[in-house]
Amino acid sequence: MAYIELGNDIPGIRGLLAYRPETAQPLGEFIEVLLRGDNSLSRGERELIGAYVSRLNECAYCTNSHCATAAAQLPGGSAQVELTLADVATAPITGKLRALLDIAGLVQVNGRMVTADAVAKARAEGATDVEIHDTVLIAAAFCMFNRYVDGLGTSLPDDPAEYAVSARFLIEHGYRTPR
Amino acid sequence: MAYIELGNDIPGIRGLLAYRPETAQPLGEFIEVLLRGDNSLSRGERELIGAYVSRLNECAYCTNSHCATAAAQLPGGSAQVELTLADVATAPITGKLRALLDIAGLVQVNGRMVTADAVAKARAEGATDVEIHDTVLIAAAFCMFNRYVDGLGTSLPDDPAEYAVSARFLIEHGYRTPR
Repeated sequence: MAYIELGNDIPGIRGLLAYRPETAQPLGEFIEVLLRGDNSLSRGERELIGAYVSRLNECAYCTNSHCATAAAQLPGGSAQVELTLADVATAPITGKLRALLDIAGLVQVNGRMVTADAVAKARAEGATDVEIHDTVLIAAAFCMFNRYVDGLGTSLPDDPAEYAVSARFLIEHGYRTPR
Repeated sequence: MAYIELGNDIPGIRGLLAYRPETAQPLGEFIEVLLRGDNSLSRGERELIGAYVSRLNECAYCTNSHCATAAAQLPGGSAQVELTLADVATAPITGKLRALLDIAGLVQVNGRMVTADAVAKARAEGATDVEIHDTVLIAAAFCMFNRYVDGLGTSLPDDPAEYAVSARFLIEHGYRTPR
């Protein structure tokens, strides 16, 4: 049960968004643009960055949610996601995505951890400035969402199969439409 | 100089927002609602929560910016802001704001640090559920903004007086309108 009376029993961030529509609306618009807008990073790659940061922050709800959404949109499916979260260095991903995930991992600790060297490595692997920008912002955004979800003590779904159901809904309808 | 070519020399988050208007628009809308929308927490109190979290994250640009904006809107001005950032426990603030800042400090570390006890203390000091919700979300949001600003290596203003100029603009025009 959440730390505040939400007036609903919806798990994770969805219960918070239903509780406070004033902030839910721009948050939904923001994450829709960031994770699903036109981009040279695929939707699956962007979801994977979010899942990775959520795992580093030990946010169970966001990790499970975004692993499901990444797995459903990446060519390597859930195996690719799990191998990446287990060890970025050896994961079956492109060199560019590996370098971007390394930047995301630094952002998770603190923005000041990112170095010109880490950025240069990503650029050497073919990352564009917009991709570097968006990686930093995605990692930073998940540091917000993870804290929002855990800081208010939200609940997990009773049935873990719920994550895949939510992932299918998200992929079809996007983040602007609350499920 | 920032880690990516922004195409502008605007310091701090303002340079990033100008670089990527796609995400700047919903971010501006979000922070406008969260820090300036109708609320039983004053605008100065909400800015103070943001300044406090920025100080904990050691984000110089955001700390200076939001200290200036808080100082201009709190009855105790910059002395009240500086005493609060130096030591929440002895700061000249209400018991409710002290308890909310304690929650914000826990969120800054990780959302999972927040306890039912910390929430109960805030409630005992008169905090409502919406105030507790908004405090968690403000603290989480600054964990995003601080990482965004520092993770891309943005610059500081050449002239520190710039923070007060920006604060006056923000108080008059809000966060929706880029300066």
